[in-house]
Amino acid sequence: MELWYTEKQNDNLKLSCRVTKTLHVEKTPFQSMAVLETPGFGRALILDGIVQTTVWDEYIYHEMIAHVPLNTHPSPKKVLIIGGGDGGTAREVVRHPMVQAAVMVEIDERVVAASRAFLPELSSGLDDPKLDLRFEDGIKHVEACENEYDVIIIDSTDPVGPAVGLFSGGFYRKVHKALKEDGLFAAQTESPLFDLNFIARINDDVGAVFPIVRQYLACVPSYPGGLWSFTMGSKKFDPVLTPPASVPELPYRYYNKSIHLAAFMLPQFMQDFLGRG
Amino acid sequence: MELWYTEKQNDNLKLSCRVTKTLHVEKTPFQSMAVLETPGFGRALILDGIVQTTVWDEYIYHEMIAHVPLNTHPSPKKVLIIGGGDGGTAREVVRHPMVQAAVMVEIDERVVAASRAFLPELSSGLDDPKLDLRFEDGIKHVEACENEYDVIIIDSTDPVGPAVGLFSGGFYRKVHKALKEDGLFAAQTESPLFDLNFIARINDDVGAVFPIVRQYLACVPSYPGGLWSFTMGSKKFDPVLTPPASVPELPYRYYNKSIHLAAFMLPQFMQDFLGRG
Repeated sequence: MELWYTEKQNDNLKLSCRVTKTLHVEKTPFQSMAVLETPGFGRALILDGIVQTTVWDEYIYHEMIAHVPLNTHPSPKKVLIIGGGDGGTAREVVRHPMVQAAVMVEIDERVVAASRAFLPELSSGLDDPKLDLRFEDGIKHVEACENEYDVIIIDSTDPVGPAVGLFSGGFYRKVHKALKEDGLFAAQTESPLFDLNFIARINDDVGAVFPIVRQYLACVPSYPGGLWSFTMGSKKFDPVLTPPASVPELPYRYYNKSIHLAAFMLPQFMQDFLGRG
Repeated sequence: MELWYTEKQNDNLKLSCRVTKTLHVEKTPFQSMAVLETPGFGRALILDGIVQTTVWDEYIYHEMIAHVPLNTHPSPKKVLIIGGGDGGTAREVVRHPMVQAAVMVEIDERVVAASRAFLPELSSGLDDPKLDLRFEDGIKHVEACENEYDVIIIDSTDPVGPAVGLFSGGFYRKVHKALKEDGLFAAQTESPLFDLNFIARINDDVGAVFPIVRQYLACVPSYPGGLWSFTMGSKKFDPVLTPPASVPELPYRYYNKSIHLAAFMLPQFMQDFLGRG
Protein backbone atom coordinates (compact mmCIF):
# COMPACT_ATOMS: atom_id res chain seq x y z
CA MET A 1 0.00 0.00 0.00
CA GLU A 2 1.22 3.51 -0.79
CA LEU A 3 0.18 6.14 1.72
CA TRP A 4 0.55 9.82 0.81
CA TYR A 5 -0.16 12.98 2.76
CA THR A 6 -1.40 15.72 0.45
CA GLU A 7 -1.51 19.36 1.45
CA LYS A 8 -3.60 21.70 -0.65
CA GLN A 9 -1.22 24.65 -0.42
CA ASN A 10 -3.62 26.86 -2.30
CA ASP A 11 -6.48 26.40 -4.78
CA ASN A 12 -4.09 25.43 -7.54
CA LEU A 13 -1.18 23.72 -5.85
CA LYS A 14 -0.79 20.52 -3.85
CA LEU A 15 2.29 19.04 -2.23
CA SER A 16 2.29 15.34 -1.38
CA CYS A 17 4.75 13.37 0.63
CA ARG A 18 4.89 9.65 1.14
CA VAL A 19 3.90 8.52 4.60
CA THR A 20 5.03 5.34 6.29
CA LYS A 21 3.13 5.80 9.52
CA THR A 22 0.60 8.04 11.22
CA LEU A 23 2.22 8.48 14.62
CA HIS A 24 -0.35 10.70 16.27
CA VAL A 25 -3.68 12.37 15.56
CA GLU A 26 -5.40 14.68 18.03
CA LYS A 27 -7.99 17.41 18.20
CA THR A 28 -6.59 19.92 20.71
CA PRO A 29 -8.67 22.76 22.21
CA PHE A 30 -7.14 25.05 19.57
CA GLN A 31 -6.51 23.04 16.41
CA SER A 32 -6.30 19.64 14.78
CA MET A 33 -2.86 18.08 15.01
CA ALA A 34 -1.07 15.13 13.44
CA VAL A 35 2.46 13.77 13.47
CA LEU A 36 3.41 11.71 10.42
CA GLU A 37 6.44 9.55 9.71
CA THR A 38 7.63 10.27 6.16
CA PRO A 39 10.61 8.77 4.33
CA GLY A 40 11.33 12.00 2.45
CA PHE A 41 11.03 14.61 5.20
CA GLY A 42 11.36 12.60 8.37
CA ARG A 43 8.68 13.23 10.95
CA ALA A 44 6.27 16.03 10.10
CA LEU A 45 4.03 18.09 12.39
CA ILE A 46 0.70 19.04 10.79
CA LEU A 47 -1.64 21.64 12.34
CA ASP A 48 -5.06 22.29 10.82
CA GLY A 49 -3.98 20.46 7.68
CA ILE A 50 -0.82 22.50 7.14
CA VAL A 51 2.76 21.27 7.51
CA GLN A 52 4.35 23.28 10.31
CA THR A 53 7.72 21.68 10.31
CA THR A 54 9.55 18.55 9.25
CA VAL A 55 12.66 17.03 10.81
CA TRP A 56 14.30 17.10 7.37
CA ASP A 57 14.16 20.86 6.76
CA GLU A 58 13.20 22.43 10.11
CA TYR A 59 16.73 23.74 10.68
CA ILE A 60 16.34 26.25 7.86
CA TYR A 61 13.25 27.90 9.33
CA HIS A 62 14.32 27.70 12.97
CA GLU A 63 17.88 28.93 12.51
CA MET A 64 16.63 31.84 10.40
CA ILE A 65 13.79 32.93 12.68
CA ALA A 66 16.10 32.80 15.72
CA HIS A 67 19.68 33.70 14.81
CA VAL A 68 18.93 36.57 12.44
CA PRO A 69 17.24 38.68 15.15
CA LEU A 70 19.55 37.40 17.91
CA ASN A 71 22.66 38.41 15.97
CA THR A 72 21.18 41.70 14.81
CA HIS A 73 20.96 42.71 18.48
CA PRO A 74 24.43 43.19 20.03
CA SER A 75 23.31 41.92 23.41
CA PRO A 76 20.22 39.66 23.29
CA LYS A 77 20.07 38.82 26.98
CA LYS A 78 16.35 38.40 27.47
CA VAL A 79 14.26 36.86 24.73
CA LEU A 80 10.55 36.13 24.29
CA ILE A 81 9.30 33.42 21.94
CA ILE A 82 5.62 33.53 21.05
CA GLY A 83 4.31 30.23 19.69
CA GLY A 84 6.88 27.77 18.44
CA GLY A 85 5.28 24.84 20.24
CA ASP A 86 7.44 22.28 18.45
CA GLY A 87 10.44 23.66 20.34
CA GLY A 88 12.71 24.26 17.37
CA THR A 89 12.96 28.02 17.92
CA ALA A 90 13.56 27.56 21.67
CA ARG A 91 16.36 25.09 20.88
CA GLU A 92 18.11 27.74 18.79
CA VAL A 93 17.52 30.56 21.26
CA VAL A 94 18.85 28.75 24.33
CA ARG A 95 22.04 27.70 22.61
CA HIS A 96 22.93 31.32 21.83
CA PRO A 97 25.65 32.16 24.37
CA MET A 98 24.48 35.72 25.01
CA VAL A 99 20.93 34.72 25.88
CA GLN A 100 20.55 34.64 29.65
CA ALA A 101 16.82 34.06 29.92
CA ALA A 102 14.14 33.08 27.44
CA VAL A 103 10.40 33.01 27.96
CA MET A 104 8.35 30.88 25.57
CA VAL A 105 4.62 31.44 25.51
CA GLU A 106 2.68 28.79 23.61
CA ILE A 107 -1.10 28.77 23.60
CA ASP A 108 -1.48 25.05 22.88
CA GLU A 109 0.10 22.78 25.48
CA ARG A 110 -0.79 19.73 23.38
CA VAL A 111 1.60 20.78 20.59
CA VAL A 112 4.46 20.83 23.07
CA ALA A 113 3.39 17.45 24.45
CA ALA A 114 3.32 15.93 20.95
CA SER A 115 6.71 17.41 20.12
CA ARG A 116 8.21 16.04 23.34
CA ALA A 117 6.78 12.63 22.48
CA PHE A 118 7.55 12.44 18.77
CA LEU A 119 9.99 15.19 17.76
CA PRO A 120 12.95 15.01 20.17
CA GLU A 121 15.20 16.75 17.63
CA LEU A 122 12.98 19.82 17.96
CA SER A 123 11.90 19.66 21.58
CA SER A 124 15.40 19.07 22.97
CA GLY A 125 15.79 22.68 24.12
CA LEU A 126 12.52 22.85 26.05
CA ASP A 127 14.07 21.63 29.31
CA ASP A 128 16.99 24.01 29.17
CA PRO A 129 17.35 25.89 32.48
CA LYS A 130 17.44 29.20 30.59
CA LEU A 131 13.91 28.60 29.30
CA ASP A 132 10.71 29.56 31.11
CA LEU A 133 7.91 27.75 29.24
CA ARG A 134 4.37 29.02 29.80
CA PHE A 135 1.11 27.86 28.31
CA GLU A 136 -0.90 31.00 27.80
CA ASP A 137 -2.05 33.45 25.17
CA GLY A 138 0.96 35.21 23.66
CA ILE A 139 -1.04 38.38 23.12
CA LYS A 140 -2.02 38.60 26.79
CA HIS A 141 1.57 37.96 27.86
CA VAL A 142 2.87 40.74 25.65
CA GLU A 143 0.15 43.13 26.85
CA ALA A 144 1.39 42.74 30.42
CA CYS A 145 5.04 43.49 29.57
CA GLU A 146 6.81 46.82 29.35
CA ASN A 147 10.46 47.50 28.51
CA GLU A 148 11.28 43.86 29.25
CA TYR A 149 12.77 42.04 26.26
CA ASP A 150 15.76 42.58 24.00
CA VAL A 151 14.38 40.33 21.27
CA ILE A 152 10.90 38.93 20.59
CA ILE A 153 10.44 36.09 18.11
CA ILE A 154 6.93 35.44 16.79
CA ASP A 155 6.93 31.85 15.57
CA SER A 156 3.28 31.48 14.69
CA THR A 157 1.15 29.37 12.42
CA ASP A 158 -0.37 30.93 9.30
CA PRO A 159 -2.61 33.98 9.83
CA VAL A 160 -5.77 31.93 10.25
CA GLY A 161 -7.29 30.46 13.40
CA PRO A 162 -5.46 31.04 16.69
CA ALA A 163 -2.67 33.09 15.10
CA VAL A 164 -4.74 35.85 13.45
CA GLY A 165 -4.18 38.30 16.31
CA LEU A 166 -0.41 37.94 16.00
CA PHE A 167 -0.47 39.71 12.62
CA SER A 168 -2.29 42.93 13.57
CA GLY A 169 -1.10 46.50 13.91
CA GLY A 170 -2.45 46.59 17.46
CA PHE A 171 -0.30 43.61 18.38
CA TYR A 172 2.84 45.20 16.95
CA ARG A 173 2.23 48.22 19.21
CA LYS A 174 2.15 45.87 22.20
CA VAL A 175 5.34 44.18 21.00
CA HIS A 176 6.94 47.63 20.75
CA LYS A 177 6.00 48.38 24.35
CA ALA A 178 7.24 44.99 25.59
CA LEU A 179 10.65 45.56 24.02
CA LYS A 180 13.47 47.53 25.64
CA GLU A 181 14.45 50.83 24.08
CA ASP A 182 16.87 49.17 21.67
CA GLY A 183 14.82 46.00 21.20
CA LEU A 184 13.72 44.29 18.01
CA PHE A 185 11.42 41.50 16.91
CA ALA A 186 11.16 39.02 14.05
CA ALA A 187 8.11 37.11 12.81
CA GLN A 188 7.39 34.60 10.08
CA THR A 189 5.32 36.42 7.45
CA GLU A 190 4.33 33.95 4.74
CA SER A 191 5.28 33.57 1.08
CA PRO A 192 6.48 36.48 -1.05
CA LEU A 193 5.32 34.64 -4.15
CA PHE A 194 1.79 33.90 -2.99
CA ASP A 195 1.15 36.53 -0.28
CA LEU A 196 2.92 39.70 -1.32
CA ASN A 197 -0.09 41.88 -0.47
CA PHE A 198 -0.06 40.38 3.01
CA ILE A 199 3.66 41.10 3.44
CA ALA A 200 3.13 44.68 2.28
CA ARG A 201 0.33 45.13 4.82
CA ILE A 202 2.55 43.77 7.60
CA ASN A 203 5.35 46.05 6.39
CA ASP A 204 3.04 49.06 6.74
CA ASP A 205 1.69 47.98 10.13
CA VAL A 206 5.15 47.34 11.57
CA GLY A 207 6.50 50.50 9.94
CA ALA A 208 3.76 52.51 11.65
CA VAL A 209 5.20 51.49 15.03
CA PHE A 210 8.91 50.74 14.51
CA PRO A 211 11.41 53.13 12.89
CA ILE A 212 13.11 50.20 11.12
CA VAL A 213 11.24 47.47 9.27
CA ARG A 214 12.97 44.89 7.07
CA GLN A 215 12.03 41.65 5.37
CA TYR A 216 14.38 38.71 5.03
CA LEU A 217 14.05 35.45 3.15
CA ALA A 218 14.92 31.78 3.27
CA CYS A 219 13.93 28.82 1.15
CA VAL A 220 11.91 26.31 3.20
CA PRO A 221 11.04 23.34 0.95
CA SER A 222 8.03 22.15 2.93
CA TYR A 223 6.29 25.54 2.70
CA PRO A 224 4.29 26.61 -0.38
CA GLY A 225 6.57 27.83 -3.15
CA GLY A 226 9.68 27.28 -1.00
CA LEU A 227 10.60 30.97 -0.69
CA TRP A 228 9.54 32.24 2.74
CA SER A 229 9.57 35.67 4.36
CA PHE A 230 10.30 36.96 7.82
CA THR A 231 9.69 40.55 8.93
CA MET A 232 11.84 42.36 11.46
CA GLY A 233 10.77 45.47 13.35
CA SER A 234 13.54 47.24 15.22
CA LYS A 235 13.82 50.30 17.45
CA LYS A 236 17.51 50.96 16.91
CA PHE A 237 19.56 48.33 15.07
CA ASP A 238 19.14 48.15 11.30
CA PRO A 239 20.25 44.70 10.11
CA VAL A 240 21.02 46.07 6.65
CA LEU A 241 23.22 48.93 7.85
CA THR A 242 24.80 47.21 10.83
CA PRO A 243 25.83 43.68 9.93
CA PRO A 244 26.34 41.34 12.88
CA ALA A 245 29.52 42.32 14.71
CA SER A 246 30.04 38.87 16.08
CA VAL A 247 28.29 35.63 15.24
CA PRO A 248 28.79 32.98 17.91
CA GLU A 249 30.39 29.72 16.83
CA LEU A 250 27.50 27.29 16.79
CA PRO A 251 26.94 24.15 14.70
CA TYR A 252 24.65 25.92 12.24
CA ARG A 253 23.35 23.94 9.30
CA TYR A 254 21.81 26.77 7.25
CA TYR A 255 22.64 30.08 8.94
CA ASN A 256 26.02 31.78 8.85
CA LYS A 257 27.26 35.37 8.75
CA SER A 258 27.05 35.55 4.96
CA ILE A 259 23.54 34.11 4.89
CA HIS A 260 22.55 36.67 7.56
CA LEU A 261 23.40 39.49 5.16
CA ALA A 262 22.22 37.76 1.99
CA ALA A 263 18.79 37.05 3.46
CA PHE A 264 17.97 40.78 3.49
CA MET A 265 18.80 41.19 -0.20
CA LEU A 266 15.33 41.09 -1.71
CA PRO A 267 14.36 40.08 -5.23
CA GLN A 268 13.46 43.02 -7.44
CA PHE A 269 9.73 42.21 -7.45
CA MET A 270 9.67 42.56 -3.65
CA GLN A 271 11.66 45.79 -3.68
CA ASP A 272 9.32 47.21 -6.31
CA PHE A 273 6.19 46.11 -4.48
CA LEU A 274 7.40 47.45 -1.13
CA GLY A 275 8.42 50.74 -2.73
CA ARG A 276 12.15 50.25 -2.32
CA GLY A 277 12.94 49.82 -6.01
CA MET B 1 -14.17 17.97 -13.39
CA GLU B 2 -10.90 18.76 -11.61
CA LEU B 3 -7.80 18.08 -13.67
CA TRP B 4 -4.43 17.99 -11.92
CA TYR B 5 -0.91 17.47 -13.26
CA THR B 6 1.20 15.58 -10.75
CA GLU B 7 4.98 15.41 -10.94
CA LYS B 8 6.74 12.77 -8.93
CA GLN B 9 9.71 14.92 -7.97
CA ASN B 10 11.39 12.02 -6.25
CA ASP B 11 10.33 8.73 -4.65
CA ASN B 12 8.80 10.52 -1.68
CA LEU B 13 7.58 13.86 -2.99
CA LYS B 14 4.93 14.89 -5.50
CA LEU B 15 3.92 18.35 -6.66
CA SER B 16 0.51 18.79 -8.25
CA CYS B 17 -0.91 21.77 -10.04
CA ARG B 18 -4.41 22.29 -11.29
CA VAL B 19 -4.74 22.14 -15.05
CA THR B 20 -7.42 23.85 -17.10
CA LYS B 21 -6.29 22.63 -20.52
CA THR B 22 -3.77 20.39 -22.20
CA LEU B 23 -2.55 22.66 -24.96
CA HIS B 24 -0.07 20.35 -26.64
CA VAL B 25 1.32 16.83 -26.35
CA GLU B 26 4.09 15.52 -28.58
CA LYS B 27 6.73 12.84 -28.75
CA THR B 28 9.77 14.55 -30.28
CA PRO B 29 12.81 12.64 -31.57
CA PHE B 30 14.48 13.38 -28.21
CA GLN B 31 11.83 13.48 -25.49
CA SER B 32 8.16 13.59 -24.64
CA MET B 33 6.76 17.10 -24.43
CA ALA B 34 3.58 18.73 -23.17
CA VAL B 35 2.33 22.26 -22.68
CA LEU B 36 -0.33 22.68 -20.01
CA GLU B 37 -2.53 25.64 -19.13
CA THR B 38 -2.60 25.99 -15.34
CA PRO B 39 -4.42 28.62 -13.24
CA GLY B 40 -1.67 28.67 -10.59
CA PHE B 41 1.48 28.78 -12.71
CA GLY B 42 0.25 29.94 -16.09
CA ARG B 43 1.39 27.83 -19.01
CA ALA B 44 3.87 25.10 -18.14
CA LEU B 45 6.34 23.25 -20.36
CA ILE B 46 6.83 19.60 -19.40
CA LEU B 47 9.66 17.47 -20.83
CA ASP B 48 9.86 13.75 -20.04
CA GLY B 49 7.39 14.26 -17.19
CA ILE B 50 9.33 17.08 -15.52
CA VAL B 51 8.29 20.74 -15.35
CA GLN B 52 10.92 22.74 -17.21
CA THR B 53 9.44 26.15 -16.79
CA THR B 54 6.19 27.93 -16.05
CA VAL B 55 5.15 31.39 -17.16
CA TRP B 56 4.46 32.26 -13.51
CA ASP B 57 7.99 31.71 -12.14
CA GLU B 58 10.26 31.39 -15.21
CA TYR B 59 11.76 34.84 -14.68
CA ILE B 60 13.55 33.68 -11.54
CA TYR B 61 15.41 30.88 -13.28
CA HIS B 62 16.06 32.70 -16.55
CA GLU B 63 17.25 35.98 -15.04
CA MET B 64 19.57 34.09 -12.68
CA ILE B 65 21.07 31.73 -15.26
CA ALA B 66 21.69 34.64 -17.66
CA HIS B 67 22.46 37.87 -15.79
CA VAL B 68 24.70 36.42 -13.08
CA PRO B 69 27.32 35.19 -15.58
CA LEU B 70 26.76 38.12 -17.97
CA ASN B 71 27.37 40.67 -15.21
CA THR B 72 30.28 38.75 -13.73
CA HIS B 73 32.08 39.23 -17.05
CA PRO B 74 33.00 42.90 -17.62
CA SER B 75 32.50 42.63 -21.38
CA PRO B 76 30.19 39.77 -22.44
CA LYS B 77 30.21 40.48 -26.17
CA LYS B 78 29.84 36.98 -27.56
CA VAL B 79 27.65 34.46 -25.76
CA LEU B 80 26.75 30.83 -26.34
CA ILE B 81 23.54 29.30 -24.98
CA ILE B 82 23.37 25.52 -24.93
CA GLY B 83 19.81 24.20 -24.65
CA GLY B 84 17.20 26.61 -23.40
CA GLY B 85 14.71 25.65 -26.11
CA ASP B 86 11.85 27.56 -24.48
CA GLY B 87 13.71 30.79 -25.30
CA GLY B 88 13.68 32.31 -21.83
CA THR B 89 17.46 32.40 -21.50
CA ALA B 90 17.88 33.82 -25.00
CA ARG B 91 15.36 36.55 -24.19
CA GLU B 92 17.51 37.62 -21.21
CA VAL B 93 20.80 37.37 -23.09
CA VAL B 94 19.77 39.45 -26.10
CA ARG B 95 18.44 42.27 -23.97
CA HIS B 96 21.80 42.70 -22.24
CA PRO B 97 23.24 45.83 -23.88
CA MET B 98 26.84 44.55 -23.98
CA VAL B 99 25.98 41.37 -25.82
CA GLN B 100 26.76 41.82 -29.51
CA ALA B 101 26.16 38.28 -30.72
CA ALA B 102 24.60 35.22 -29.18
CA VAL B 103 24.55 31.68 -30.54
CA MET B 104 21.89 29.35 -29.19
CA VAL B 105 22.32 25.64 -29.83
CA GLU B 106 19.27 23.54 -29.04
CA ILE B 107 19.16 19.86 -29.89
CA ASP B 108 15.37 19.61 -30.10
CA GLU B 109 13.78 21.87 -32.71
CA ARG B 110 10.31 20.79 -31.58
CA VAL B 111 10.75 22.44 -28.15
CA VAL B 112 11.44 25.76 -29.85
CA ALA B 113 8.42 25.25 -32.12
CA ALA B 114 6.15 24.55 -29.14
CA SER B 115 7.49 27.57 -27.28
CA ARG B 116 6.92 29.82 -30.29
CA ALA B 117 3.36 28.48 -30.52
CA PHE B 118 2.37 28.45 -26.86
CA LEU B 119 4.88 30.42 -24.77
CA PRO B 120 5.31 33.83 -26.43
CA GLU B 121 6.49 35.36 -23.13
CA LEU B 122 9.50 33.04 -23.30
CA SER B 123 10.15 32.77 -27.02
CA SER B 124 9.96 36.52 -27.66
CA GLY B 125 13.74 36.88 -27.89
CA LEU B 126 14.26 34.11 -30.43
CA ASP B 127 13.84 36.39 -33.43
CA ASP B 128 16.22 39.04 -32.15
CA PRO B 129 18.79 39.95 -34.79
CA LYS B 130 21.61 39.40 -32.26
CA LEU B 131 20.64 35.71 -31.97
CA ASP B 132 21.90 32.93 -34.20
CA LEU B 133 19.65 29.93 -33.44
CA ARG B 134 20.93 26.51 -34.48
CA PHE B 135 19.39 23.10 -34.07
CA GLU B 136 22.29 20.80 -33.37
CA ASP B 137 24.06 18.92 -30.61
CA GLY B 138 25.49 21.41 -28.10
CA ILE B 139 28.42 19.12 -27.35
CA LYS B 140 29.44 18.93 -31.00
CA HIS B 141 29.15 22.70 -31.35
CA VAL B 142 31.38 23.29 -28.35
CA GLU B 143 33.91 20.72 -29.60
CA ALA B 144 34.36 22.71 -32.79
CA CYS B 145 35.01 26.03 -31.00
CA GLU B 146 38.23 27.46 -29.67
CA ASN B 147 38.77 30.78 -27.91
CA GLU B 148 35.43 32.00 -29.21
CA TYR B 149 33.01 32.96 -26.43
CA ASP B 150 33.09 35.36 -23.48
CA VAL B 151 30.24 33.60 -21.70
CA ILE B 152 28.65 30.17 -22.14
CA ILE B 153 25.30 29.39 -20.50
CA ILE B 154 24.29 25.75 -20.18
CA ASP B 155 20.52 25.75 -19.79
CA SER B 156 19.88 22.02 -19.86
CA THR B 157 17.25 19.62 -18.63
CA ASP B 158 18.04 17.37 -15.68
CA PRO B 159 21.08 15.08 -16.02
CA VAL B 160 19.11 12.23 -17.57
CA GLY B 161 18.32 11.53 -21.21
CA PRO B 162 19.69 13.96 -23.81
CA ALA B 163 21.40 16.20 -21.23
CA VAL B 164 23.67 13.64 -19.53
CA GLY B 165 26.72 14.60 -21.60
CA LEU B 166 26.39 18.25 -20.54
CA PHE B 167 27.33 17.34 -16.94
CA SER B 168 30.64 15.53 -17.58
CA GLY B 169 34.22 16.48 -16.85
CA GLY B 170 35.07 15.93 -20.51
CA PHE B 171 32.43 18.44 -21.54
CA TYR B 172 33.75 21.08 -19.14
CA ARG B 173 37.17 20.74 -20.77
CA LYS B 174 35.56 21.46 -24.13
CA VAL B 175 33.73 24.44 -22.65
CA HIS B 176 37.07 25.70 -21.32
CA LYS B 177 38.59 25.49 -24.78
CA ALA B 178 35.60 27.21 -26.41
CA LEU B 179 35.89 30.17 -24.02
CA LYS B 180 38.23 33.10 -24.50
CA GLU B 181 41.14 33.48 -22.09
CA ASP B 182 38.99 35.44 -19.60
CA GLY B 183 35.76 33.57 -20.30
CA LEU B 184 33.34 31.96 -17.90
CA PHE B 185 30.33 29.68 -17.97
CA ALA B 186 27.26 29.02 -15.84
CA ALA B 187 25.05 25.93 -15.76
CA GLN B 188 21.97 24.82 -13.88
CA THR B 189 23.10 22.12 -11.47
CA GLU B 190 20.05 20.76 -9.63
CA SER B 191 18.88 20.91 -6.02
CA PRO B 192 21.27 21.41 -3.09
CA LEU B 193 18.73 19.76 -0.80
CA PHE B 194 18.20 16.62 -2.86
CA ASP B 195 21.35 16.39 -5.00
CA LEU B 196 24.25 17.66 -2.95
CA ASN B 197 26.48 14.76 -3.96
CA PHE B 198 25.81 15.63 -7.59
CA ILE B 199 26.69 19.29 -7.01
CA ALA B 200 29.91 18.27 -5.25
CA ARG B 201 30.85 16.04 -8.20
CA ILE B 202 30.21 18.90 -10.64
CA ASN B 203 32.22 21.20 -8.35
CA ASP B 204 35.17 18.81 -8.57
CA ASP B 205 34.85 18.29 -12.32
CA VAL B 206 34.65 22.02 -13.04
CA GLY B 207 37.40 22.75 -10.51
CA ALA B 208 39.68 20.30 -12.32
CA VAL B 209 39.48 22.50 -15.43
CA PHE B 210 38.73 26.05 -14.25
CA PRO B 211 40.74 27.98 -11.63
CA ILE B 212 37.52 29.44 -10.20
CA VAL B 213 34.40 27.43 -9.45
CA ARG B 214 31.44 28.84 -7.53
CA GLN B 215 27.87 27.82 -6.84
CA TYR B 216 25.00 30.25 -6.62
CA LEU B 217 21.39 29.76 -5.62
CA ALA B 218 17.87 30.90 -6.31
CA CYS B 219 14.47 29.72 -5.16
CA VAL B 220 12.44 28.36 -8.09
CA PRO B 221 9.02 27.26 -6.79
CA SER B 222 8.25 24.83 -9.61
CA TYR B 223 11.46 22.85 -9.06
CA PRO B 224 11.74 20.16 -6.35
CA GLY B 225 12.36 21.70 -2.95
CA GLY B 226 12.40 25.20 -4.42
CA LEU B 227 16.07 25.91 -3.69
CA TRP B 228 18.07 25.52 -6.92
CA SER B 229 21.77 25.64 -7.72
CA PHE B 230 23.82 27.00 -10.57
CA THR B 231 27.54 26.38 -10.99
CA MET B 232 29.94 28.87 -12.51
CA GLY B 233 33.37 28.01 -13.88
CA SER B 234 35.59 30.97 -14.66
CA LYS B 235 39.09 31.48 -16.03
CA LYS B 236 39.69 34.93 -14.54
CA PHE B 237 36.75 36.73 -12.91
CA ASP B 238 35.71 35.53 -9.46
CA PRO B 239 32.12 36.60 -8.81
CA VAL B 240 32.68 36.50 -5.06
CA LEU B 241 35.77 38.71 -5.08
CA THR B 242 34.83 41.02 -7.92
CA PRO B 243 31.22 42.15 -7.62
CA PRO B 244 29.63 43.37 -10.82
CA ALA B 245 31.08 46.78 -11.67
CA SER B 246 28.02 47.82 -13.59
CA VAL B 247 24.64 46.18 -13.86
CA PRO B 248 22.67 47.45 -16.85
CA GLU B 249 19.28 49.02 -16.15
CA LEU B 250 16.84 46.38 -17.30
CA PRO B 251 13.30 45.62 -16.11
CA TYR B 252 14.41 42.73 -13.91
CA ARG B 253 11.77 40.99 -11.83
CA TYR B 254 14.05 38.84 -9.61
CA TYR B 255 17.67 39.78 -10.33
CA ASN B 256 19.39 42.91 -9.12
CA LYS B 257 22.89 43.85 -7.97
CA SER B 258 22.20 42.82 -4.37
CA ILE B 259 20.70 39.49 -5.40
CA HIS B 260 23.77 38.91 -7.60
CA LEU B 261 26.00 39.02 -4.53
CA ALA B 262 23.57 37.32 -2.17
CA ALA B 263 23.13 34.33 -4.48
CA PHE B 264 26.75 33.27 -3.89
CA MET B 265 26.32 33.26 -0.10
CA LEU B 266 25.81 29.56 0.52
CA PRO B 267 24.01 27.92 3.43
CA GLN B 268 26.35 26.36 5.94
CA PHE B 269 25.47 22.79 4.94
CA MET B 270 26.68 23.52 1.40
CA GLN B 271 29.85 25.22 2.57
CA ASP B 272 30.59 22.27 4.85
CA PHE B 273 29.87 19.69 2.17
CA LEU B 274 31.95 21.49 -0.45
CA GLY B 275 34.82 21.91 2.00
CA ARG B 276 34.52 25.67 2.33
CA GLY B 277 33.29 25.71 5.91
